[in-house]
Amino acid sequence: MVARSLLYEGKAKIVYTTTEPEILLAHFKDDATAFNAQKRGSIVGKGEINCTISTVLFQYLEKQGIPTHWLESISANQMRVRRLQILPLEVVVRNIAAGSLCQQTGLPLGTVLKQPLVEFYYKNDSLGDPLLTSDRLFLLELATPEQVNQLQQMARQINRYLSEFFQRCDLTLVDFKLEFGYDAQGQLRLGDEISPDTCRLWDVAETDTNRRVMDKDRFRRDLGNVETAYQEVLRRVLAQGNEGGGN
Amino acid sequence: MVARSLLYEGKAKIVYTTTEPEILLAHFKDDATAFNAQKRGSIVGKGEINCTISTVLFQYLEKQGIPTHWLESISANQMRVRRLQILPLEVVVRNIAAGSLCQQTGLPLGTVLKQPLVEFYYKNDSLGDPLLTSDRLFLLELATPEQVNQLQQMARQINRYLSEFFQRCDLTLVDFKLEFGYDAQGQLRLGDEISPDTCRLWDVAETDTNRRVMDKDRFRRDLGNVETAYQEVLRRVLAQGNEGGGN
Repeated sequence: MVARSLLYEGKAKIVYTTTEPEILLAHFKDDATAFNAQKRGSIVGKGEINCTISTVLFQYLEKQGIPTHWLESISANQMRVRRLQILPLEVVVRNIAAGSLCQQTGLPLGTVLKQPLVEFYYKNDSLGDPLLTSDRLFLLELATPEQVNQLQQMARQINRYLSEFFQRCDLTLVDFKLEFGYDAQGQLRLGDEISPDTCRLWDVAETDTNRRVMDKDRFRRDLGNVETAYQEVLRRVLAQGNEGGGN
Repeated sequence: MVARSLLYEGKAKIVYTTTEPEILLAHFKDDATAFNAQKRGSIVGKGEINCTISTVLFQYLEKQGIPTHWLESISANQMRVRRLQILPLEVVVRNIAAGSLCQQTGLPLGTVLKQPLVEFYYKNDSLGDPLLTSDRLFLLELATPEQVNQLQQMARQINRYLSEFFQRCDLTLVDFKLEFGYDAQGQLRLGDEISPDTCRLWDVAETDTNRRVMDKDRFRRDLGNVETAYQEVLRRVLAQGNEGGGN
C-alpha cells in the first residue's frame, strides 16, 4: 500500500489517500498546538509515541468489541485506517474535573465526578470548538437523538475499558476526547487517536498537582519535561499492551 | 414604606430592605454595563424607562397568571418587590438567532428558530455567566430536574405572552433573559426586570440590521441613539399597556 495524495493536514496528523478508496494513511506529526492553535510548538518524538500508543489502544478496544478505524500500523508513526465520514463533534468524557470544566463551572481541579460526564463540542476551529447543549446540537442538525444516544453509550463503554487499561498502567484517566464517524458500510466507528494529546492522564503515585500530569497539559501549561512524560506513558502502555492488556 | 438599608448594589439596580422583611425596594439605575461589566457607561433616563416598562410587563404577566415579584411601583424608578430566594440561573429564551448564539454556533444573525430555544446560564460573574448543559446544571446542583422542567414551562409561557405583547408594539422579541426565585411561601416567581436591557427587540418596520435594534445592543455595539431607542420602546409599551395590553 502506497500513499497516493495528501487528503488533508491537521494539527497533529497528515492524512493521505491510498490506492484503496476506503483506506487512508494517517501520519502522526510531532507538531503540538493548544488553545485552538493559538499556542504552537513541537514535542520531539510525539508522532511515533502517539501512533504507537493509539495502536495499542485501538487494538485493545477492538478486542473488547468497540469498532475503530484502525487497520494496521505500518511504521512507528503511520497507520492504515478506514476512511470515515467523521461527525462534526468532539465527544469528551470526564471522570475528574479539569481544564475547561473547572474554568466554566468553578469546580475545583481534581473533583471526582459522581458519574462520568459525556459532553459534546462542535468540531469547528473557526468557532473555537464550543460546548454544545443538546438543544444546540439538534438545532444545528449535527446528529440525531438516536446518534447522540449511540455516541453516549459507546463513549461510556470506551471510558470503562480505557480507565481499566490506564489504571493497570498506574495512570488515572481524568478525561479524554473522542471522534466518531461512519465507514462505507454505515458502521459507526471510533476514529482519530487515543494518546496523551487527547487524554488527561495523571500518575497515580504522584500527588503533586503539576508533577502528576502525564499528558499535553505539560505543553499547554508550560510544566516542562513534556517529552519525558510522553515517553513514560508509552513505556507503561507498551508494557501493559504486551501483557495482553484487555483482560 | 421606607427603604431601610442597602441589601446589595448590582449592575443595573440597587436593592434595599424595608421595614417589611419579605418586601424589598428595587431602585433602577442609569448605569449600563456589557460583556460581563468590561464595558461600562450610562444611558440617560434608563432607570426610569426600565422601571416603567418592567412595571407594565409584570402587571401584564400577572394578569395572565404568571407569578412575579412585582408588588407596586412607588416612583418612576423604584418598585416594591417580594424578596425572592433567587436561583443562580439566567434563563434565556431565544426566538431568533442573535448575540452569543450566533458567535458560538455560526448560525447567521436573524435566523428564525423552528421553536423557541430555552437555555440556562450559570449566574456567576466571576465565571462570566457560562452556558450550562443539563448535565452541568445538575452536576453543580443548581436546580433539580423538576425545577428545570417548571422553569422551562414558565419561560415558554412568558415568551408566548411577551412575544404577543411586543408584536402589538410593532417590536419583534428576538430573545430575552429571565431570573426566577422562590418567595417566603415557596412559590416560584419571575424576578429581576423585563426591559431593553434584558430583551433584544427589533422594530418590525425596519429591515436594516442596525437601525432595527431597539435594545441594549445599541450600547453594546456602539450603534448610537441608545436613549432614543429606549424612549421609543417605552412610548410603545405604555401605549399598549394603556390599551389593556393583555387581551
